[in-house]
Amino acid sequence: MTSTPETQWVALRGRLQEISALVSAADLLEWDQLTYMPSGGAGARGQQLATLQRLAHEKLIDPTLGLLLDTLEAATAQQDAASDEPAILREVRRRYERAIKAPPAFTAEVAEHLAASYDAWAVARPANDFGLVRPFLEKTLDYSRRYADFFPGYAHVADPLIDVGDHGMTVATIRPCFAALRQQLAPLVKQISDQTPPDDRCLYQPFAEDKQIAFGEQIITAFGYDFERGRQDRSPHPFSTRIGAGDVRITTRIYPNDLAQGLFSTLHEAGHAMYEQGVDPALAGTLADEGVSMAVHESQSRLWENLVGRSWPFWNHHYPQLQSIFPEQLGKVSLDTFYRAVNKVQRSLIRTDADEVTYNLHVIIRFELEQALLEGSLAVADLPDAWRAAYAEALGIAPPDDRDGVLQDVHWYAGLIGGSFQGYTLGNILSAQFYAEAVRAHPEIPAEIGGGKFNTLHGWLREQIYRHGSKFTTAELLQRITGGPLRLEPYLAYLTGKYGQIYELT
Amino acid sequence: MTSTPETQWVALRGRLQEISALVSAADLLEWDQLTYMPSGGAGARGQQLATLQRLAHEKLIDPTLGLLLDTLEAATAQQDAASDEPAILREVRRRYERAIKAPPAFTAEVAEHLAASYDAWAVARPANDFGLVRPFLEKTLDYSRRYADFFPGYAHVADPLIDVGDHGMTVATIRPCFAALRQQLAPLVKQISDQTPPDDRCLYQPFAEDKQIAFGEQIITAFGYDFERGRQDRSPHPFSTRIGAGDVRITTRIYPNDLAQGLFSTLHEAGHAMYEQGVDPALAGTLADEGVSMAVHESQSRLWENLVGRSWPFWNHHYPQLQSIFPEQLGKVSLDTFYRAVNKVQRSLIRTDADEVTYNLHVIIRFELEQALLEGSLAVADLPDAWRAAYAEALGIAPPDDRDGVLQDVHWYAGLIGGSFQGYTLGNILSAQFYAEAVRAHPEIPAEIGGGKFNTLHGWLREQIYRHGSKFTTAELLQRITGGPLRLEPYLAYLTGKYGQIYELT
Repeated sequence: MTSTPETQWVALRGRLQEISALVSAADLLEWDQLTYMPSGGAGARGQQLATLQRLAHEKLIDPTLGLLLDTLEAATAQQDAASDEPAILREVRRRYERAIKAPPAFTAEVAEHLAASYDAWAVARPANDFGLVRPFLEKTLDYSRRYADFFPGYAHVADPLIDVGDHGMTVATIRPCFAALRQQLAPLVKQISDQTPPDDRCLYQPFAEDKQIAFGEQIITAFGYDFERGRQDRSPHPFSTRIGAGDVRITTRIYPNDLAQGLFSTLHEAGHAMYEQGVDPALAGTLADEGVSMAVHESQSRLWENLVGRSWPFWNHHYPQLQSIFPEQLGKVSLDTFYRAVNKVQRSLIRTDADEVTYNLHVIIRFELEQALLEGSLAVADLPDAWRAAYAEALGIAPPDDRDGVLQDVHWYAGLIGGSFQGYTLGNILSAQFYAEAVRAHPEIPAEIGGGKFNTLHGWLREQIYRHGSKFTTAELLQRITGGPLRLEPYLAYLTGKYGQIYELT
Repeated sequence: MTSTPETQWVALRGRLQEISALVSAADLLEWDQLTYMPSGGAGARGQQLATLQRLAHEKLIDPTLGLLLDTLEAATAQQDAASDEPAILREVRRRYERAIKAPPAFTAEVAEHLAASYDAWAVARPANDFGLVRPFLEKTLDYSRRYADFFPGYAHVADPLIDVGDHGMTVATIRPCFAALRQQLAPLVKQISDQTPPDDRCLYQPFAEDKQIAFGEQIITAFGYDFERGRQDRSPHPFSTRIGAGDVRITTRIYPNDLAQGLFSTLHEAGHAMYEQGVDPALAGTLADEGVSMAVHESQSRLWENLVGRSWPFWNHHYPQLQSIFPEQLGKVSLDTFYRAVNKVQRSLIRTDADEVTYNLHVIIRFELEQALLEGSLAVADLPDAWRAAYAEALGIAPPDDRDGVLQDVHWYAGLIGGSFQGYTLGNILSAQFYAEAVRAHPEIPAEIGGGKFNTLHGWLREQIYRHGSKFTTAELLQRITGGPLRLEPYLAYLTGKYGQIYELT
């Protein structure tokens, strides 16, 4: 049989489907491990996961896949770049090139090192013993630089590492943006901290767990999360995962004496999951059927969690219902008190506990420390002190120990250094850019939110962002939607407007 | 590097681990599909499963695996046949030979046909329309014969089909055994049917579902099912599945107005699962780490469900507790009434609803019809009538329609014909042989059961059967344990003893 573009396309799709099936099975193994797996399953599970991931990787670096890409790229060169086939080829090419450039022996060595590093961290953090992880972190830093060197021609050593999660983003783009954000946030945090803090005791009462879950699920159903194509379970750390085109799950963690943690984690993960649920089914099983970047993904979780879920119109509508569910706890708490409680700004040591305003300072500190480590201007040995100094400068507080300092996040101990954190703050910035565009296109959106309706907003996001999966890069999406690049202004306007009002700043 | 038996062994184990990981992942995909998967996941799930099963099959038929087997068989020829390495090689060889003999194109064609056949059955059964499935069944019969022909030299066309699930068993062994059993059962069923039936209304009352589940889980924990290495969930049809060495799960189905169904399905599936949980960890990931046959597997589920779980000593001990859980429903029901209710014998149309005594008649009818179809003495077109005639003769009742007749079981519509049913009755026969040996070795077992203790019995089964996985064939196990072959007498003695007493037969 003569090979034609049609048969080559079928061959490529078949290979991508195989990779997708292996990755989806691995995703289910992980979901199960974090939700229902009995403890006795742990040993075999690690091996099962490693095997499936290796098989998927082997299929991705198969030279025949490269040949198919070469041929099909030539055959589709005349097609509209925004149509599916060229976009799929671009995404597969990107993944293929990344996968083939790091030699398999290096990849295996790093995976083994990171597994040992994670184990060391799991002991070191509760023991508050940075010395235990220091040799691992030094080796990880070395591996991170070596990984970058597989992609010669970069402007900054972190660029190839950032590119993994945020393709197209570079230190040159991010650093000035983060510096400007930091400069604007510092006085805002200072101003807020000079005010009397809101009374948020209403959030810390006994709240029946099943009622917490039911309320959260009702809200995300209204947002547009589709329970026919997903489900929510409980796990020690909330996450979202796509097991297949029609199966995008979330998990939450419910605290019996803390209303906000469980609820906002549900809204957050539902934001991630609605993105994945909204991808065009035509892209299913092509590797281009996932959200495009950490930054855009985080923009969606943050948009639903914060811009919608912590907004005045949202609570103006939903608070009476929440009061009726928890009359004893909230019956005498005013809407204003509750709204201020869920938006309380507080300088704290732990990133994951941070509010909307201070959160970005935590991220920017980490981003800058990562760059300093990679550039060689900061030694791993000096990292704990540098961490404390950075917190003192940016937030005015410093951790008394490393447990709540340099040891607090798993990222550097279970992955390479240099690309793990930028997405969180890029996502915050993007969330405001996207939301502003949505409201520009549909000025009725805030009023609809105030009426408990979210379908105009959800429809706009689906149309502008979700359905495209990975067809367009973050920058291309931004260009298509806003007509320009990443801009800080909408996010700053959002923060200063909202918190200026809450804290009655002048 | 020179290839040595040691490096070859490592290479073989690596390949078997890969196959095991793929099969385990497929098993988890299936478990999830039947327990927690949202409906939207169905489309992708079918494809994911098919891909993983195909990849596992491809790895099993890899000629390099065959070469490794050749070499290692020669290298281990002098070893004790009962030690692990030769046993693993035997089991892998058996699976390899079976897999390579049916050409991949045939296997794929059959899989596609059976998927369509299943879909037709799912419509035909509720519609009571045998005509809908008849052409599929004719094709399945043809495929079944063609499958057998890939294994030339068989004595009976069904032998290669029986061999899939019950390796070593043949029509020549099974047919006389089943004929003798049928001959003994017919008068027993007749005698029982002449008595006043026990009053089993006590089982059909409202029973809180969570209490039903908790009681069942307490019982199987006492049996020896390890919840650290397993879990129980709910599914439309109960099943057990091994996701990995330390992760063997069961499911149950609970009926709010029927106490017996959920409870005995839990005991039954726990019997299967304890077998898998008891396999020697040294066999993990070798393909020899599963229960050896349908028959031995069913012997374990039936032993725990019936010989233990429906016995007088068992209920003598546990019934007061059950009464205290359901005082309103059972407080005034005597132990004797309850015991007779859970052992009620009733001629019925549906195999899965049948009691211990009549159950085997359902199985033998199917086994004989399968043989007649394969031999060509019965045409598919005449199957519905043959079914009715067989029921009338063996049980004295006949289904008024095909829905509860020839359409009732999924087996012939989703799999090949000829090897699906014999294991159920072989398992019943074996359960009594094994139990009799256990009691011969440990005469205290019945008294222990009467005291709510099961560890002597569980320990004996683990030592004699469970730990061996697939190291020995069914016949070898029987020989090792009883010193002889399959024997009907212990099972007949069990049935006539127990039911003679319950029904006060002479």
